[in-house]
Amino acid sequence: MVRAKSWTLRKHFEGFPKTSDFELKEVELPKLKDGDVLFESVFLSVDPYMRPYSRTMMKEGDIMIGSQVARVMESKNPTYPVGTYVVANSGWTTHFISDGKDLQLLPSWPEKIPRSLALGTVGMPGLTAYFGLFEICKIRAGDTVLVNAAAGAVGSVVGQLAKIGGCKVVGSAGSDKKVAYLKQIGFDEAFNYKTVGSLEEALRKASPDGYNCYFDNVGGEFSSIALHQMKKFGRIAVCGAISGYNDTVPQKGPYIQGPVLWNQLYMEGFIYSRWNDRREEVLKILLRWVLEVRGVTVPQTTVRELMLLPFSQMPVYANKSQVCSHTLLFHTQPVPLAGDMGVGWVCVSIKACRIQYRREE
Amino acid sequence: MVRAKSWTLRKHFEGFPKTSDFELKEVELPKLKDGDVLFESVFLSVDPYMRPYSRTMMKEGDIMIGSQVARVMESKNPTYPVGTYVVANSGWTTHFISDGKDLQLLPSWPEKIPRSLALGTVGMPGLTAYFGLFEICKIRAGDTVLVNAAAGAVGSVVGQLAKIGGCKVVGSAGSDKKVAYLKQIGFDEAFNYKTVGSLEEALRKASPDGYNCYFDNVGGEFSSIALHQMKKFGRIAVCGAISGYNDTVPQKGPYIQGPVLWNQLYMEGFIYSRWNDRREEVLKILLRWVLEVRGVTVPQTTVRELMLLPFSQMPVYANKSQVCSHTLLFHTQPVPLAGDMGVGWVCVSIKACRIQYRREE
Repeated sequence: MVRAKSWTLRKHFEGFPKTSDFELKEVELPKLKDGDVLFESVFLSVDPYMRPYSRTMMKEGDIMIGSQVARVMESKNPTYPVGTYVVANSGWTTHFISDGKDLQLLPSWPEKIPRSLALGTVGMPGLTAYFGLFEICKIRAGDTVLVNAAAGAVGSVVGQLAKIGGCKVVGSAGSDKKVAYLKQIGFDEAFNYKTVGSLEEALRKASPDGYNCYFDNVGGEFSSIALHQMKKFGRIAVCGAISGYNDTVPQKGPYIQGPVLWNQLYMEGFIYSRWNDRREEVLKILLRWVLEVRGVTVPQTTVRELMLLPFSQMPVYANKSQVCSHTLLFHTQPVPLAGDMGVGWVCVSIKACRIQYRREE
Repeated sequence: MVRAKSWTLRKHFEGFPKTSDFELKEVELPKLKDGDVLFESVFLSVDPYMRPYSRTMMKEGDIMIGSQVARVMESKNPTYPVGTYVVANSGWTTHFISDGKDLQLLPSWPEKIPRSLALGTVGMPGLTAYFGLFEICKIRAGDTVLVNAAAGAVGSVVGQLAKIGGCKVVGSAGSDKKVAYLKQIGFDEAFNYKTVGSLEEALRKASPDGYNCYFDNVGGEFSSIALHQMKKFGRIAVCGAISGYNDTVPQKGPYIQGPVLWNQLYMEGFIYSRWNDRREEVLKILLRWVLEVRGVTVPQTTVRELMLLPFSQMPVYANKSQVCSHTLLFHTQPVPLAGDMGVGWVCVSIKACRIQYRREE
């Protein structure tokens, strides 16, 4: 018998999540039926989207949503023999039983890259960056691309892919260390939006003739200001609206129809799953870029035990202006991401956006 | 010698335009040089876009911007013999001299249709409706299309073209007479936004399962509410933002990135001139629809003398919530638009959005 430990949502978040909104539960999993597979979670992801989605997709008592890299422990399903790795959407749990539906097999995985990247650059965040840039922003060589939350799991890949695409890339992030990191991974311009004084001036200084593309992870006031610096026919990919995820009362800003109209701007919200039919193809592209192109990496940190994670200090939930800090995590153990690139260490030092749970193996 | 009378912008508008913001000037036009053409304006247009554009495109003292149908009075340019009709952008003036550049010849024009339509259904508003629906909203048969300012020069064509395209059409307008007019020209649902109480409920009642397309002429609060009733992958054409044209301080509303993201909405601002290379082709389509399809019409009224137009009561400027009323115009003389359709009369009775100046001929 296997006992699964799962973090459940005790109470829907009001404003910032609190420790008391969560509850750890332990259940004994049943025996496998024919077709069933028992998985252990190897890496769990914690992402900003969980804040708004928990409101609409979850009821109190449910296991927290989220995806994981999981490995087959026991199987009565020939498609998933013991030792197979998948990406599943079974939430924050150490073990789970699946009937084999809605699992994604990991592509052929090189030894020198940790499988945690299947939740990062070669997973949802990488797919999000790819489709947002190529399908929504429709980047062309020579474009100037703006991305905010640029040191995050998606933003950092956006910047690196845009450089591969021949663009000038400007990134906004919330600490000087993050800004240094952005320059290290190839951003042409980067600034700390918290210390620039005037965001309007910082944007204008970084690209005096404006922006062709804006990959928006933040929304809110940042977007209201950035909108006015888009070039004619500028393209805006609305990927996230993190500035509003903790709101109980929606924030307000100037109506946007004026600037959208005058410069004939194009804006589209998107979720990577729209292109599920191209998932395999693009994951292979991303994996190739990680292997061949130095620099396509994703900030990540690992923690040894999910159970040690102090929810009151969980970086994603803690403070909307400090989304990425997680100095208080126990047992952080950085993992180099692609051999000698050693970006794992860098990411730890810049307090990257994603935490990933790694069981002892 | 010909004396041209022109209305100039004496002072940039602050809030609502006032009579004192304009000044009538009379100048003697010079003799024609080789290549020059002397035109008399036959129809002038007055449009909502003039409010915001006057701020960005004009300096005080300039002749008010605007397009006209004009006829050649005298010519030293073989391309434009006497009697030729063109659409020009020479502003609110009775006569002007052109060097022949930036003029658009009217397409072959059937006798039974007044040339004023070259400023309406078979002109800028028609092109705007066409490109917004087919290129931005990308309407498909079976879609539900929402349009506001629906009794206006653009909105009324939007609704009729969307019906031709096999869509269900819902229109919002600001008086019961306009609503009756919308039903008469084929809108499936129409409501008076000023009297419905809850716009949210009116939109839901008109289409309980939401909207595929939203042709937005208004912006502001209306759009903030409509956004939440868009279907997944809904398309929004931002054609106008009339609710904010008189603002001195921009109005505010809830940030839109949330709903844009959750339903993966697409929004694009557009100006018809983007498709100038298709102008001739689409004008022919619109003209054919006016001739062959009963119902493709545009509300319009004519006035006999520009000089009699009391600017303090000019409908487009007078009151943002009463954009379409022009009861106080002198010498209104409705013109039937397409033979027996007699929509001219209907349009007068519903106090349509456009005024057109018609000289005695």
